[in-house]
Amino acid sequence: MLNQTPEQTRTQAARPARLELMAAIETRLSGFLTQERARWAEVDHRCLVPVDAVADLVAAGGKRWRPAFCVSGFLAAGGPEALTGIVLDAAAAVELVHAAALLHDDVLDDSPLRRGTPTAHTKHAAAHAAKGWLGESRRFGEGTAILAGDLAMVYAGRLTAALPPAARPVWDDMLTEIQVGQYLDMAVAAECVVDSQLSRWVAVCKSGRYSIHRPLLLGAAIAGRPELAGGFAEYGEALGEAFQLRDDLIDTFGDSTATGKPVGSDLAQHKMTLLLAMACGRDDRLRALVAERDWDVEAIRGRLLAVGAQDEIERRIDDLVRRARAAIGRADLPAGWRDELTDMAAEVAYRDR
Amino acid sequence: MLNQTPEQTRTQAARPARLELMAAIETRLSGFLTQERARWAEVDHRCLVPVDAVADLVAAGGKRWRPAFCVSGFLAAGGPEALTGIVLDAAAAVELVHAAALLHDDVLDDSPLRRGTPTAHTKHAAAHAAKGWLGESRRFGEGTAILAGDLAMVYAGRLTAALPPAARPVWDDMLTEIQVGQYLDMAVAAECVVDSQLSRWVAVCKSGRYSIHRPLLLGAAIAGRPELAGGFAEYGEALGEAFQLRDDLIDTFGDSTATGKPVGSDLAQHKMTLLLAMACGRDDRLRALVAERDWDVEAIRGRLLAVGAQDEIERRIDDLVRRARAAIGRADLPAGWRDELTDMAAEVAYRDR
Repeated sequence: MLNQTPEQTRTQAARPARLELMAAIETRLSGFLTQERARWAEVDHRCLVPVDAVADLVAAGGKRWRPAFCVSGFLAAGGPEALTGIVLDAAAAVELVHAAALLHDDVLDDSPLRRGTPTAHTKHAAAHAAKGWLGESRRFGEGTAILAGDLAMVYAGRLTAALPPAARPVWDDMLTEIQVGQYLDMAVAAECVVDSQLSRWVAVCKSGRYSIHRPLLLGAAIAGRPELAGGFAEYGEALGEAFQLRDDLIDTFGDSTATGKPVGSDLAQHKMTLLLAMACGRDDRLRALVAERDWDVEAIRGRLLAVGAQDEIERRIDDLVRRARAAIGRADLPAGWRDELTDMAAEVAYRDR
Repeated sequence: MLNQTPEQTRTQAARPARLELMAAIETRLSGFLTQERARWAEVDHRCLVPVDAVADLVAAGGKRWRPAFCVSGFLAAGGPEALTGIVLDAAAAVELVHAAALLHDDVLDDSPLRRGTPTAHTKHAAAHAAKGWLGESRRFGEGTAILAGDLAMVYAGRLTAALPPAARPVWDDMLTEIQVGQYLDMAVAAECVVDSQLSRWVAVCKSGRYSIHRPLLLGAAIAGRPELAGGFAEYGEALGEAFQLRDDLIDTFGDSTATGKPVGSDLAQHKMTLLLAMACGRDDRLRALVAERDWDVEAIRGRLLAVGAQDEIERRIDDLVRRARAAIGRADLPAGWRDELTDMAAEVAYRDR
């Protein structure tokens, strides 16, 4: 370590630097939520229910990809030490936005499981029924999850109050896209729209941009390096699509013990996933199956296997990872961070291995 | 108007100054939402559904008390011309927070009407059924309202990005209290809690602080006059309670043509309103009626009439208005603004006359 400039040291220590910030994010999240608990416990013990619904979901795990890309964008861009507090808060906020989206999304999809435990609306509907409270248990459970999701969004807003003006548009775009993308996803499934362009847009908007591209740009914008936006966008969009395709593969062909959430729910909910849209583009029989109003899920899954959709999607993922890596290879970043983001691409795209 | 300083002119023109800003808020709100419409129309016509759900609710009316108190707090505190844009955005944001709360609250309560038209979840559930789309109509309608409410919150966040740091805690507290207060309101009704202290806290938190006190303080904080917080809090808390009691009177004894929303829903939903909690404190028979698990709504309403609850609450409102006016009379404000806030107190407290 002799004769090295501080910058070189930092460059070579990309992963430790990232992991150090990731640990600090956990401390920040739990510290913030503990403080909120203490504040509301003074009013009435019932006030803790929505706070705990947020805290429990955050504590239940999740891979923290979004905060990881946020702090990586910041560190790779050489963000100054003085702004570390801002990026930590922003990364914690990104995770809270994700928690809010999950709490509401699980109501929209009526999902029973999340991160290996019952979803908030399921749990609180069951508690309502068990205690014989007044009113409809379903409405009470869903109401609790709606308000807990709202609270998580409020917390995310509080943690991003000091965001530098240059980072604000990235944050605003991400939040707006999540809501509109979520609605589009729900509407396209309800209306049985078979339009692979539109499905691709939903996947890019909901998954790619919000999971990778926007958090990465947010970190770079906090660091004051807007010129990295182009390369990060290219990396983020390619990797985001790979991320979504992996999600589709897991949901269509995976097993639920590994994921902590039910599998097969996309097909059961008539969701035109990117995987399905791509396969339909190459096979008339599959197209005919999804054109039916009532889906024969087993027939669709069988046909996907028969036409080799798994292999096709794996090849597509490989190609997207190559493109993401090439984009990062051309970006003006320290070598250590180029390597780190290259490694992260594989971890995201092949996260079930 | 000769021989007057600019300050005197402004002081005497309190109401015109407020009305001018109120008109500017409408322009800001509709301009912002029109821009969002244009942006999303390019992606897919379906994206307009959540945007329009927000825009339609905002356009359907409402009395705009919250933005009115926000700009009044700013103008009364002598907020500088240069910050007018900030306070307009903040006041528009306050109205969007209210829209978000209404969209979600109507799902929680399953309310059919709002501002004289069908609520968003009711309308979109009906559209889903009429078009024979896939899935459950109730879930689709409620999902649309959930996402539209989320979008309104995102818009409110975008409009408050430039809030001065001194105003941030007021904003943050308001948003957090709304969510926790809303949950507490729902839980207390479900659990049949008869606790007038707790009911009062819910009323103060949900209605007083969020409708009057916090918007007023927000305006004053933007103007840079934190020393007004004490007087404004006293005024806002008293008037907020009067506002809530008027709401309770309208819901318990009013008629729905005047309000644009159903009346009698509080009792039907087993809500321990402030009105009911106060009346229970003075009458054993009423207390016995609300201690029942299944409420006999007509018996409760009859008993409220028999014990003279209407008159009692009217006297309490008179008293609260006097207290609010006394607090504003002691505040360090220009005479014109003292008069204006005194008039506004009567408009809020006697808004059905």
